Amino acid sequence: MFENKTNRTELSSLGEFGLIEHISKAIELKNPESVHGIGDDAAVLDSQGKMTVVTTDMLVEGVHFDLTFQPLRHLGYKSVTVNLSDVYAMNATPKQIIVAIALSNRFSLEAIEELYEGMKMACDKYEIDLVGGDTTTSTSGLIISITAIGVANKDELVYRSGAKEHDLICVSGDLGGAYMGLQLLEREKRIFVENPNIQPDLGGNDYILERQLKPEARKEVIEKLAELKVKPTSMIDISDGLSSEILHICYQSGVGAEIYEDKIPIDPQTYERAREFNLDPTVCALSGGEDYELLFTIQQSDYEKLRAHMDISIIGHITDKNSGVHLVDKSGNMVKMKAQGWDALLKQE
Amino acid sequence: MFENKTNRTELSSLGEFGLIEHISKAIELKNPESVHGIGDDAAVLDSQGKMTVVTTDMLVEGVHFDLTFQPLRHLGYKSVTVNLSDVYAMNATPKQIIVAIALSNRFSLEAIEELYEGMKMACDKYEIDLVGGDTTTSTSGLIISITAIGVANKDELVYRSGAKEHDLICVSGDLGGAYMGLQLLEREKRIFVENPNIQPDLGGNDYILERQLKPEARKEVIEKLAELKVKPTSMIDISDGLSSEILHICYQSGVGAEIYEDKIPIDPQTYERAREFNLDPTVCALSGGEDYELLFTIQQSDYEKLRAHMDISIIGHITDKNSGVHLVDKSGNMVKMKAQGWDALLKQE
Repeated sequence: MFENKTNRTELSSLGEFGLIEHISKAIELKNPESVHGIGDDAAVLDSQGKMTVVTTDMLVEGVHFDLTFQPLRHLGYKSVTVNLSDVYAMNATPKQIIVAIALSNRFSLEAIEELYEGMKMACDKYEIDLVGGDTTTSTSGLIISITAIGVANKDELVYRSGAKEHDLICVSGDLGGAYMGLQLLEREKRIFVENPNIQPDLGGNDYILERQLKPEARKEVIEKLAELKVKPTSMIDISDGLSSEILHICYQSGVGAEIYEDKIPIDPQTYERAREFNLDPTVCALSGGEDYELLFTIQQSDYEKLRAHMDISIIGHITDKNSGVHLVDKSGNMVKMKAQGWDALLKQE
Repeated sequence: MFENKTNRTELSSLGEFGLIEHISKAIELKNPESVHGIGDDAAVLDSQGKMTVVTTDMLVEGVHFDLTFQPLRHLGYKSVTVNLSDVYAMNATPKQIIVAIALSNRFSLEAIEELYEGMKMACDKYEIDLVGGDTTTSTSGLIISITAIGVANKDELVYRSGAKEHDLICVSGDLGGAYMGLQLLEREKRIFVENPNIQPDLGGNDYILERQLKPEARKEVIEKLAELKVKPTSMIDISDGLSSEILHICYQSGVGAEIYEDKIPIDPQTYERAREFNLDPTVCALSGGEDYELLFTIQQSDYEKLRAHMDISIIGHITDKNSGVHLVDKSGNMVKMKAQGWDALLKQE
């Protein structure tokens, strides 16, 4: 009716990097308290010395979760931990969350209670306060938007932009499990839709199901790094897959990287399910996403301190910018890394 | 598939008050920095003396806005000001916002640019920094969730809970305009849908259209109160309509109230359009919402300081709890106040 007739650029032609850069370049910070703005896991605000870290994530039904197999309690839990994960990825301690939800009349009070119970479980486990929010109606489905707030001393903060040539690339835990959990749930859903009398067969897959449905934020990794007195030079959490995240670090640090395929940590259950599904386990780890592990870089001099730590794998090293970002595959071939997580998501629609 | 078979309580049977109370009662604050949690315009966090105020609002296409008549630039502007309004309603100064949006491929880059341009205009006007966010896909329509962060000294903060018997009830600006603007836009949309060749007739209605499409947050009211050295005893911004907001104040302060119909400020344009639409202008002011004026209470001893202020109307006084919350109509009848804004919205679906 009052539509603007302008050129049309498809968002898919930009991808996440392009869109964020596009949005960011028009924005200047005005307040001295705003230390660090768009483009990291969280913003940083200066509260008289102590830094306040703020981050937000939105989960949309049908895009980020499927209530046919995601119990609401787990969804509540996950919606909190994915936000806390962003705060930990700044090497900060989360303290509060604010929850905005939009929901249709399809949801009963009991359903909402389950959702909040899950949030409360996560708040209790991570010692977080739910301090406020907004509850509103939606025309279709459930939308959850959570903002997490944390604190850190100024010199403790770790940004995406600090990686230097020769730094070692580390990752916590293992990768690809959340993606395989999702593949399994979607297969059982298809079978169930075709024949509702067949009960889902999910036995023996607890690990990958939990990785997908109820992921944790890696608080203990941050605590262990502090204990070992290792301050990463850069850090990010793995929400979109290893390829996408290493590209974020390289892009913001102005460096290149080499990651060794045979060093990428993959759990045996993830590996077996991937093979069953005729998927390459490495691709699941690179592009699957939702593992919420921490990807970080350290100075070579910190290698000895981390070497014996079972839960952290050293998977590669930072190179100069001109060398680009590559995967060195099992045969020694250099494969250029591409971000698949978000772009793939955007093109799905 | 893994559905929980439990009792079902319709959310509409609870209403906003019931739902918030229900959610809040399960939540305990654990961190000493979390000074004030759910149930006000914003949460309050203690950053070593200075208080951090955080608030969030979610806007859903088809519920909170209609892109057939809401230009994206105005929507961007409005999505920021409605959040700032919540920070001002705490008597605090907003400093930063974080923006989460979900959008479908229906939107082009140019559309998103327009949306962000509007946000930037509001940020510039109110001297706010956009410090971060999340951009994701939606299966249908546009969802905007904004978190605003502000600061205040501890003794400056004004909560909803501070109103005392005999306090005077004040409101800034005038009410009902945003609602009448919406009525007008919806009428013109219906005409346009029936016959696309008829151009919308919106002339002479600039004031109410702007109240609906591009509302401001009442920064200057907060500044004026500070200048006059009047600290309200309680305050809230009018997003859901005067009835709903006075009920919030009375509920949280444990008091009653009497509001005089003939004191409610209504702009002549609002009044005329309401009459044209066969609507009662008072009902528009009471239940319309979206005016983003400030409703606050002051001690009687502050009356002289505010009396001559043209932009602030004194519309009633606080009574004891047992007297309830009433409108004294033009004939002197006492009418019990009911919250209509949010409940009506929830039942619409």
